[in-house]
Amino acid sequence: MRNILVSGGCGFIGSHLVDRLLGRSDIDRLVVVDNLWTGLRENISHIADPRLTLEVGDVEAFRSPLQFDEILHLASPASPSWYMREPVRVIKANVAGALNLLTLLKPGGRFCFTSTSEVYGDPSVNPQPESYRGSVDCTGPRSSYDESKRCTEALLFEAQRTSGIDVRVVRLFNVYGPRTRVDDGRAVSNFISQALTTGVLTVYGDGAQSRSWGYVDDIVDGLERFFWRDVISHRGPLNIGNDREISVLQVARYIAGLVPGSSIQHHPAMPQDPTNRRPDLTLARRILPGWEAGIPYEEGILRTLAWFREKLDGPKACAEDAVS
Amino acid sequence: MRNILVSGGCGFIGSHLVDRLLGRSDIDRLVVVDNLWTGLRENISHIADPRLTLEVGDVEAFRSPLQFDEILHLASPASPSWYMREPVRVIKANVAGALNLLTLLKPGGRFCFTSTSEVYGDPSVNPQPESYRGSVDCTGPRSSYDESKRCTEALLFEAQRTSGIDVRVVRLFNVYGPRTRVDDGRAVSNFISQALTTGVLTVYGDGAQSRSWGYVDDIVDGLERFFWRDVISHRGPLNIGNDREISVLQVARYIAGLVPGSSIQHHPAMPQDPTNRRPDLTLARRILPGWEAGIPYEEGILRTLAWFREKLDGPKACAEDAVS
Repeated sequence: MRNILVSGGCGFIGSHLVDRLLGRSDIDRLVVVDNLWTGLRENISHIADPRLTLEVGDVEAFRSPLQFDEILHLASPASPSWYMREPVRVIKANVAGALNLLTLLKPGGRFCFTSTSEVYGDPSVNPQPESYRGSVDCTGPRSSYDESKRCTEALLFEAQRTSGIDVRVVRLFNVYGPRTRVDDGRAVSNFISQALTTGVLTVYGDGAQSRSWGYVDDIVDGLERFFWRDVISHRGPLNIGNDREISVLQVARYIAGLVPGSSIQHHPAMPQDPTNRRPDLTLARRILPGWEAGIPYEEGILRTLAWFREKLDGPKACAEDAVS
Repeated sequence: MRNILVSGGCGFIGSHLVDRLLGRSDIDRLVVVDNLWTGLRENISHIADPRLTLEVGDVEAFRSPLQFDEILHLASPASPSWYMREPVRVIKANVAGALNLLTLLKPGGRFCFTSTSEVYGDPSVNPQPESYRGSVDCTGPRSSYDESKRCTEALLFEAQRTSGIDVRVVRLFNVYGPRTRVDDGRAVSNFISQALTTGVLTVYGDGAQSRSWGYVDDIVDGLERFFWRDVISHRGPLNIGNDREISVLQVARYIAGLVPGSSIQHHPAMPQDPTNRRPDLTLARRILPGWEAGIPYEEGILRTLAWFREKLDGPKACAEDAVS
């Protein structure tokens, strides 16, 4: 039986992963560490499983009498509007967090880390294979996130090289879906919550910048296959994402079309917003045969829209109830 | 009067910087923090100045009742053969070290950091201007050093952006000179100590890889001008180095020619050894008018050779004395 730690387990992706982990029967304890900075307690409040414990606090300061068989380090904001506000804290969560968690790993244990396609920066190669070294401005306005993910990758692969630790690192491309914060600030969730509230969708720049939109169920399915697998031959980082490349404007138009009365407004471009981003999935398809991020954005957005409708209607309905 | 902290002040470059700092009359206390991993106590043992204190310990764990007006963060091994052996420790010294030192900086204080030309990785642009984003393999065998320097730059410039801290970051190109460890492992010191001991200079690969060799006095002169200056208009990183590009083989041949009986042997290339490295000094010449790394390698190597001769003869002479 195993003790498992998930940092950032109350977050968007983290909480979906916790749901899946509790489907495993070989887990004795599942400890979630989350400081609820961008994570939400309600993301795991539906879970009644006694194996689950939530420890509210910073991952870099977390202490435990337990040693863990598997550590999944997801603690970090992922939305530029969040990480640009508190960059030092982002670096602490990722790098100091990983340094701290490494001390809690059992000998022979496994360390999983969700890195990001941001390690490729504004790429000059499209699609991006794992071997692409990236084009990141290490002093730029996105550097707290990009460089702390890069440095944590370095830390883990160096630990693998010198200590033989079983390290699993995925580079996640854009992910969207239920449990994104309403105030998350990234494109899909922004467009949907804007469509449902103000009716005005703000596109930064001309919207020609493209992304590869991965629906959270597909992405977490990839994580499950890569992280849970007992034996893997691949010792490097692995791209996980949807490789259908769609412009931001196209997504905005699709969402605007789903919500009558909504319209699109252009705002100045975000600083150093990458112009394109698409995973080369050659390796993922070889390492994880059968896995595919198959849910098209049209379908994923419908599901996300339904979730946001319910979320945004929920409190209003309650308020109305209280008044009536 | 000011309190100043130098991390890594017993190191090769750090100790030269400490010598210069003590020439200033506006300093009240100068605290050196060094864990003596690659630094040597003897590098500052010639100093009798009562303002100087040495605190032996890891920079990331350093605690002090003092707050500092200026912090100079140099603690890190810089030689691949040292940093590749203990990569996790390198990341701690740089990133966790900087995170810790930031808590010891007085409001309005200044934070100086010696970054490296390694942030450029194996560059596809030559010479490298500060704006070049680099080509670093963030999971490669040099990543602990390269990525922790990049991440620390990110940390500091983000702190500058969000908190207005006075940040001074230099990217140092190859530096050599007196007080390099005999077992440092980098080209110049390696060649010299090999020439003086075994007589066989080991060149990794064909030696065609080029570097820009900066004599330590020139480099520390650049640091002094950049770090001490009260007002600077430049808020980004600054290349500091010698921009005369010389191959490793040429340096080996020059040293072999100075020590009769020595010869050159080729060994397999070091992993991911950059093929070229030369600073674009346009910005340095504008920001630091009058500064130039003017000592040619022929002269700097003669001085370094003289220092190594004395160093290597010293203990032997003592041993002989003891026997006689």
